[in-house]
Amino acid sequence: MILCNFADMKRRKFILDSALLTAGAAVSAHLPVMGAVRHVSSPGIRLEWENFTARMKYTFTISGSSRTSTPIVLTRITWNGETGYGEASMPPYLGESHESVDLFLKKVREDVLPRFDDPFRLDAILRETDDIAEGNNAAKASVDIALHDLVGKLLGQPWWRIWGYSPENTPCTCYTIGYDESDDIVRQKTAEASGSRFLKVKLGQGDARDRRMIRLIREVCPRTPLFIDANQGWKDRVYASEMAGWLAEQGAVLIEQPMARDDIEGNGYVTSRSPIPVVADESCRRLKDIRNIYGAFDAINIKLMKCTGLREGHEMVTLAHSLGMDTMIGCMTETSVAISAAAQLSPKMRWADLDGNILISNDPFSGMKLVDGRITLGMLPGIGVSDRLYGSVQDNCAQ
Amino acid sequence: MILCNFADMKRRKFILDSALLTAGAAVSAHLPVMGAVRHVSSPGIRLEWENFTARMKYTFTISGSSRTSTPIVLTRITWNGETGYGEASMPPYLGESHESVDLFLKKVREDVLPRFDDPFRLDAILRETDDIAEGNNAAKASVDIALHDLVGKLLGQPWWRIWGYSPENTPCTCYTIGYDESDDIVRQKTAEASGSRFLKVKLGQGDARDRRMIRLIREVCPRTPLFIDANQGWKDRVYASEMAGWLAEQGAVLIEQPMARDDIEGNGYVTSRSPIPVVADESCRRLKDIRNIYGAFDAINIKLMKCTGLREGHEMVTLAHSLGMDTMIGCMTETSVAISAAAQLSPKMRWADLDGNILISNDPFSGMKLVDGRITLGMLPGIGVSDRLYGSVQDNCAQ
Repeated sequence: MILCNFADMKRRKFILDSALLTAGAAVSAHLPVMGAVRHVSSPGIRLEWENFTARMKYTFTISGSSRTSTPIVLTRITWNGETGYGEASMPPYLGESHESVDLFLKKVREDVLPRFDDPFRLDAILRETDDIAEGNNAAKASVDIALHDLVGKLLGQPWWRIWGYSPENTPCTCYTIGYDESDDIVRQKTAEASGSRFLKVKLGQGDARDRRMIRLIREVCPRTPLFIDANQGWKDRVYASEMAGWLAEQGAVLIEQPMARDDIEGNGYVTSRSPIPVVADESCRRLKDIRNIYGAFDAINIKLMKCTGLREGHEMVTLAHSLGMDTMIGCMTETSVAISAAAQLSPKMRWADLDGNILISNDPFSGMKLVDGRITLGMLPGIGVSDRLYGSVQDNCAQ
Repeated sequence: MILCNFADMKRRKFILDSALLTAGAAVSAHLPVMGAVRHVSSPGIRLEWENFTARMKYTFTISGSSRTSTPIVLTRITWNGETGYGEASMPPYLGESHESVDLFLKKVREDVLPRFDDPFRLDAILRETDDIAEGNNAAKASVDIALHDLVGKLLGQPWWRIWGYSPENTPCTCYTIGYDESDDIVRQKTAEASGSRFLKVKLGQGDARDRRMIRLIREVCPRTPLFIDANQGWKDRVYASEMAGWLAEQGAVLIEQPMARDDIEGNGYVTSRSPIPVVADESCRRLKDIRNIYGAFDAINIKLMKCTGLREGHEMVTLAHSLGMDTMIGCMTETSVAISAAAQLSPKMRWADLDGNILISNDPFSGMKLVDGRITLGMLPGIGVSDRLYGSVQDNCAQ
């Protein structure tokens, strides 16, 4: 496959620049006390980014929309010769876009970063980034992830280790079967995912279609436990409660977001009657939402693109567990940058839905690996990614 | 002053051993990839400890007890040539002692640490330490603090920096005026503390005595804001509420623990009527207590010896702030080891009571410094202490 179109060339340059900067700094970086941060020179904290379009292997349909690609912005933050990578993923129904992220990151670059000379100041930098404007959560996450990658590299450790987690406690991820009109496509997707430990099924298309999806999947994979994602698709709480019972009989082990985001009482009704845990997704985007939904859900789904990144995500784990709630780590359609960042939190998660990078065909990075469906965490520092394209694009260009 | 008695000699050896081990490892530690942890050899995680008695500058009286010294256990954890220091402080009324800590640490050494070869596994090591037995919170903290000091040193950074805090946000500490029968001693203590930004007053000795303390202090320091610590000393909620009003008029800015620990409703009654914030101390020892007292207090006082150390203390900050509660960092009578560890959390605190090391005359370490009453955080890695005795005992021995 020839990948050398214009976008790939730009991306290659982006990653090459980072690699050269990092390599160039490696020698001088060894001079000061080992393990200490190297104040070789202080060029300030530099933020750069470029647009990227993730191409999806299948048309992706959830309650209300379909698409074949997802707009993404790849960020990098450079300081004293070390570079951290970040990412914003913008599924269109969430309201962010290449343009909105570009606008937001310009404000971070011009209004926030010049007032800091130390990327370790995560608390203040990310609070000021958050204060620029409401929303823009994916744009905020792209700054948070790049800073964490950078600081983790400066500390010489992956974040799971800095946080003191046990990597053997990572969960197995599910593999998502998106809704499709065609029975054959559903069967084909299910067959392709049949090695997975958990299948995630997107429902909320209406009773007949929802039940047909489950039966088609059960034809191909009779016993794999199911994560059900209703995506707010059920409008009646009594119906939703009955579906929860029926789905449990079909081998579902959890249900995400049965009712509308703001219908906390309706979701609570379903939770109190469901034989399996009910997980808040759209109802719980950020830390402050947990108080509102406490009691109405058994668990929360933490996604970096919702919660503005690893710092707030890490706090959400603490808060949820303190309140006796379970946690799940989720994702949008994302490259290995955001997926690997999210994986750093996974040892504290009961469930994981981190298949975003598997569902795209042009991931420019490599990072978190699945072994027999289980998330594995390596010793690569920061968020644990390497820039695979740096090699593979060169190889492809030679053809 | 000649310090070379038997206890000091033992302590000197304890610290010398650590210094030599650390120095010996420094050369080989540079060989592997910079910033990475050095698996030069794996001798396991070694825990050692010794008894220490902190001598107090003044007889210390709070509601219910008086004393002139505090039993302490100093711990050190060594791994691959790096050493972290920790401490357990055992004010007698809390039920721990040299003997109970010794017994507990033996279990940590024999039952927990042999199953780990990596001190970064804070989550698992500290959970298993916690599971050994109920209580023993100071003993648990001595393990937590030493592990944090060790891991911070391995990362080459102080914990305030690893946590991403802004050191310019540290609060000013108060200086504690203990209760005394003698008016002259109270005046003398107050005069000595007159440069402090905040004075902390221990009340709960009865109405007449409590009001006399405040008036004596106000004779010497008419305007310094007061932290009031009732130490559960008030038995009647209506009286406590009236005192809160009177104390606010005298320039008090907060009241700790007006009513008995388990009288959540009584404390809530006072909080709802107090013109100044009411802070939970004895009512909130650990993370799990925050849920119980939520709504009954405005804030919590986090002390490492109550909450088992920095890991849980850090989580308590997240939980309290998520619930809209303020936080204060407190201490027992402690050396610079536990005080400096607590100071790492201080940038997230509204108030601080970290004068434990100032109130003792034989602190064997140096660490957190106060500048014009404000906590200052340096770049020493880990918990930020140096073993001052290593030099000073040698000097004293030469006399």
